[in-house]
Amino acid sequence: MKLATYKDGSRDGQLVVVSRDLATAHYATGIATRLQQVLDDWNFLSPQLQDLYVTLNQGKARHAFPFEPRQCMAPLPRAYQWADGSAFINHVELVRKARGAEVPESFYTDPLMYQGGSDDFLGPTDPAVFASEDWGIDFEAEVAVVTADVPMGATPEAALEGIRLLMLANDWSLRNLIPAELAKGFGFFQSKPATAFSPVAVTPDELGEAWQGGRVHLALQSSWNERKVGLCEAGPEMSFHFGQLIAHIAKTRKVRAGSIVGSGTVSNKDWSRGYSCIAEKRAIETIEDGAPKTGFMHFGDRIRIEMKGRDGLSLFGAIDQQVVSASGRDGGADDEEDDSPPAAG
Amino acid sequence: MKLATYKDGSRDGQLVVVSRDLATAHYATGIATRLQQVLDDWNFLSPQLQDLYVTLNQGKARHAFPFEPRQCMAPLPRAYQWADGSAFINHVELVRKARGAEVPESFYTDPLMYQGGSDDFLGPTDPAVFASEDWGIDFEAEVAVVTADVPMGATPEAALEGIRLLMLANDWSLRNLIPAELAKGFGFFQSKPATAFSPVAVTPDELGEAWQGGRVHLALQSSWNERKVGLCEAGPEMSFHFGQLIAHIAKTRKVRAGSIVGSGTVSNKDWSRGYSCIAEKRAIETIEDGAPKTGFMHFGDRIRIEMKGRDGLSLFGAIDQQVVSASGRDGGADDEEDDSPPAAG
Repeated sequence: MKLATYKDGSRDGQLVVVSRDLATAHYATGIATRLQQVLDDWNFLSPQLQDLYVTLNQGKARHAFPFEPRQCMAPLPRAYQWADGSAFINHVELVRKARGAEVPESFYTDPLMYQGGSDDFLGPTDPAVFASEDWGIDFEAEVAVVTADVPMGATPEAALEGIRLLMLANDWSLRNLIPAELAKGFGFFQSKPATAFSPVAVTPDELGEAWQGGRVHLALQSSWNERKVGLCEAGPEMSFHFGQLIAHIAKTRKVRAGSIVGSGTVSNKDWSRGYSCIAEKRAIETIEDGAPKTGFMHFGDRIRIEMKGRDGLSLFGAIDQQVVSASGRDGGADDEEDDSPPAAG
Repeated sequence: MKLATYKDGSRDGQLVVVSRDLATAHYATGIATRLQQVLDDWNFLSPQLQDLYVTLNQGKARHAFPFEPRQCMAPLPRAYQWADGSAFINHVELVRKARGAEVPESFYTDPLMYQGGSDDFLGPTDPAVFASEDWGIDFEAEVAVVTADVPMGATPEAALEGIRLLMLANDWSLRNLIPAELAKGFGFFQSKPATAFSPVAVTPDELGEAWQGGRVHLALQSSWNERKVGLCEAGPEMSFHFGQLIAHIAKTRKVRAGSIVGSGTVSNKDWSRGYSCIAEKRAIETIEDGAPKTGFMHFGDRIRIEMKGRDGLSLFGAIDQQVVSASGRDGGADDEEDDSPPAAG
């Protein structure tokens, strides 16, 4: 089953069921209006949505219309939790190696996660608005899951059973704000602005054999300004599976329905697969040449993130966003009295 | 106006209007059923609730009933954001001094904040359930605000205008999990379990002159096992006011309606005022005697947090929680094969 949330001027949008090929959609009116409502009452509502999904795929839904990703908000336009892992240890190794730091032994047994802001997500084609290019604007292509209620103390295996939906995420990061922020000791805050999600969220069965062991065994494509920069395998090198990430949250508290849990930047040891965030490319450049040469993103840049199933069709639709200046101009918002061009990242 | 959320078996409870003296309440049925709904549409719904509040205070509300804090969930039983500051720099100074660390200069100009989990809050009298006493169970008595929509880039002054409600918070902390977690670099996660909030949330006008400059100029009382341990002034020593904390969040993203922002542990330079968390008491003991002597909380312990207005009446009602073992026994959940008594904190 594939679900999306259409913009309707409200904070939570309108729930739509989307056909497997992403060609058509149908309002879920009469079953549920918002995705959170479905997650709150999954066992009752999801079979009804599944029935509509089957009818829609058969081309028999009466009021179907062409599906338009530009009409989409994030599947959950706001959520009660966004907890992001850094489950591809290769990413951590690269970034640390580039700055001459060791990876602590515990990182291989204890997942690294941070609590993200979840009150204001971006839709898949919404502009990503920032006040300054000097902040070091970077994308992070990830896989994310949406959970059911998971009790405190759940095992990773039990937590796996609590996965309702999968999505793609673009965890926007402001690289030049990170060092000072992490030095304060309390983790990311201003350096993690609003995250974007894919047009549709899908139930795990949509992935077929590609969903195994709590990992998505498919490649995640990232294209920066139309140039393919990453085709990274999201499965085998995910050091902690989603059940382990959810259990990590649940160690000291309950995890409630509608919590979103991210994989962290998808990253492979084989550098020829490219990268799912610019920071990693810069780390590789630093390791190879002593210094990064790829700059971060500029106003006007585009990033497209997509994942195809084994049938070659887009599973989640594409995140396709443009970086936009908060001042509404090409330059940064900070340079009000300054006519010089914005600095390179 | 004073608002609370009554338990009704649902995830979000039922909105009630509570009289100024906390003696009576009235369901807000017909106006709104959930507090988030009111925050989403404040200008339309809050005047209607205010009318009911006036009628209730006059003793003329038709279906009023005695207000019972034990029936309360957190005013927002789940929220889209819980961002907690550490705005009482004295607290930071004490804790750092005890471990021989300096307070970086930037801490006096740049607020310290962390993103908390917000999918599962505790009601004011809900048990605080933990698997082990060895985690170093501690309370943190705080003041918190609930916001309207605040645009990205808002100034502290503009952000102040976005404060809709005030509450008290008990930001439960697991002290013995903190050092390893902060060493990982991504901030608190497992060390910050579910937070509890006061029975009622109140509009700023309820504080009268005590609400000034984005600070609450009243004393916060903490009683641990019936013993008064803190009577800390929440106003003058709050190094960053709530407008500054909200603006800190809004630097790189929008802040959406219903976001909860905390002050951090209320703390005074005058040690005779006591403490709003045990970690601070232990820091003082370490500074004075070289080692802490007060242990953390045990299963069965109670913590009561309350604030009285200048009229001597409880403003928010009391947070009054008991620490309970997840195993349902007095001992820790970890000691299944172990009959020895739980270790002191």
